[in-house]
Amino acid sequence: MLEVTLLGCGGTMPLPGRWLTSLFLRYQGRNILIDAGEGTQIALKQAGLSSHRTDVILLTHFHGDHVMGLPGFLTSMTVSGRKDPVLIVGPKGLLELIPKICAVASISYDVLGHELEGEEEEFAMPGYPEVLIHAFKVDHSIETWGYSVNIKRPGRFDAGRAREAEIPVKYWKVLQKGETVTDGDHTYTPDMVMGEERKGLKLTYSTDTRPCRSLRENAQGSDLLVCEGMYGEDEKLSAALENKHMTFSEAAQTARDAQVKELWLTHYSPAEQNAEIHAERVREIFANTQAGFDGKHTVLTYE
Amino acid sequence: MLEVTLLGCGGTMPLPGRWLTSLFLRYQGRNILIDAGEGTQIALKQAGLSSHRTDVILLTHFHGDHVMGLPGFLTSMTVSGRKDPVLIVGPKGLLELIPKICAVASISYDVLGHELEGEEEEFAMPGYPEVLIHAFKVDHSIETWGYSVNIKRPGRFDAGRAREAEIPVKYWKVLQKGETVTDGDHTYTPDMVMGEERKGLKLTYSTDTRPCRSLRENAQGSDLLVCEGMYGEDEKLSAALENKHMTFSEAAQTARDAQVKELWLTHYSPAEQNAEIHAERVREIFANTQAGFDGKHTVLTYE
Repeated sequence: MLEVTLLGCGGTMPLPGRWLTSLFLRYQGRNILIDAGEGTQIALKQAGLSSHRTDVILLTHFHGDHVMGLPGFLTSMTVSGRKDPVLIVGPKGLLELIPKICAVASISYDVLGHELEGEEEEFAMPGYPEVLIHAFKVDHSIETWGYSVNIKRPGRFDAGRAREAEIPVKYWKVLQKGETVTDGDHTYTPDMVMGEERKGLKLTYSTDTRPCRSLRENAQGSDLLVCEGMYGEDEKLSAALENKHMTFSEAAQTARDAQVKELWLTHYSPAEQNAEIHAERVREIFANTQAGFDGKHTVLTYE
Repeated sequence: MLEVTLLGCGGTMPLPGRWLTSLFLRYQGRNILIDAGEGTQIALKQAGLSSHRTDVILLTHFHGDHVMGLPGFLTSMTVSGRKDPVLIVGPKGLLELIPKICAVASISYDVLGHELEGEEEEFAMPGYPEVLIHAFKVDHSIETWGYSVNIKRPGRFDAGRAREAEIPVKYWKVLQKGETVTDGDHTYTPDMVMGEERKGLKLTYSTDTRPCRSLRENAQGSDLLVCEGMYGEDEKLSAALENKHMTFSEAAQTARDAQVKELWLTHYSPAEQNAEIHAERVREIFANTQAGFDGKHTVLTYE
């Protein structure tokens, strides 16, 4: 299962009562943070969560409202005694940027930076080979990436096949864990005993962007799409086009086209005060549209 | 008069419901900000104030809880359309630090940095020669400065003396403004027509520091001393000594020794949940002690 908390739902600038958009994922007690605008460490505490076990930080782009909270967030992990390294992933320029903006941060552990290249990239969450993070370029005013987090779920162990293949029982558990065993002349591989891979979990996060093919394709079939909706009203389409953002309707169309199960809107313009009303309206386009709010939480579970 | 708002009262890290210590001063519609930890721009909005007319930013030192909000604060002025330059004053290293930590800030105006030197320095608020800002080194784990803001108040205009000195009436107003007038062979100076300088206003701000002579001397006679009190309990003196902070009692002793009119305690440890109770106790040391809180506001007026 994957615990999901939307720490904030604001875009551009933090407001009293509205934190900047940032997503916090928890898998087997370890965390992934996506984006870290000013105040993210406070939003996290407000949601009753701790930064401590955050192994991966994914940054969509380098506009201030997505990264100004990084030094504070990293410092909060030092305060809580973190020693494990942290992997930060983001656009080109990341390796130069981190030491600058974190010049006054207090960091007690190694920070490993990874700059994304090309149009798409995939890597596993350190220590969790079944958690694949897929980064894909989207369409904003500067280089910006969306992220899908895919949790693979192996098939069931098939004792019948293991017996048929005359695999000693002492190796069953190891094979079930996905490891290959060699015993004298015999080599036993997991596919000899495991059933077909089952449906895992998929979460996609994308902000800031215009609707684009990359997002539609990469969000395909997500259990949850957390997507920007800068403007509730369709009348603000020209602003959305100019600033490379989306209206709620466009986000809902993206969710429908990508055939996701559920859509959370977020990254509202500071002027947007009626997110729930506009979300209700765009349910005509995509029924399972939900207006994000600070602290919105869910747990994605396997079918 | 001088409007004073304590934007936050926390130290070390921002907490839900407790912003980091930062002071906002308003004089004749222009503002001075002292310290800018993460969230300062939000705290300001929460207090119903705008960053827009902030001409001077004074930084005590470069620990993250005093400067991580600077990029967001500077960006908020860009969003509100600021064009006037901003003067930022702080310890040595400021000129190198600002471009780094503000690498993702959006700044539409000139930022003028001034690094403090020696043990004390004094300069006027740009455009307001009567507002003298006095910086003085205090005693923390890294180079740290306290600040006094002194508003000078000229004496009353003395029409009798002006007549005695046979100064033409047309020059009275100019002289009253503090300017010197030359008319042929005659030179008229303000001191020929102005009474003795009257008592102005003095506010002193100091955090983080141990009690020290520099603070006691520079806070002398302040109308308001905003002073750090990291620890409410006297039992935490050893922590105060180790971390170069103060207990409430030490802050109250400082206020008493400096013969200030009023003391606001601030920069509480995140663990400090009983500031009001401890403030009540230290009123035995200094009667006009007040526990600071987010948004605490007063207006200092001339006697």
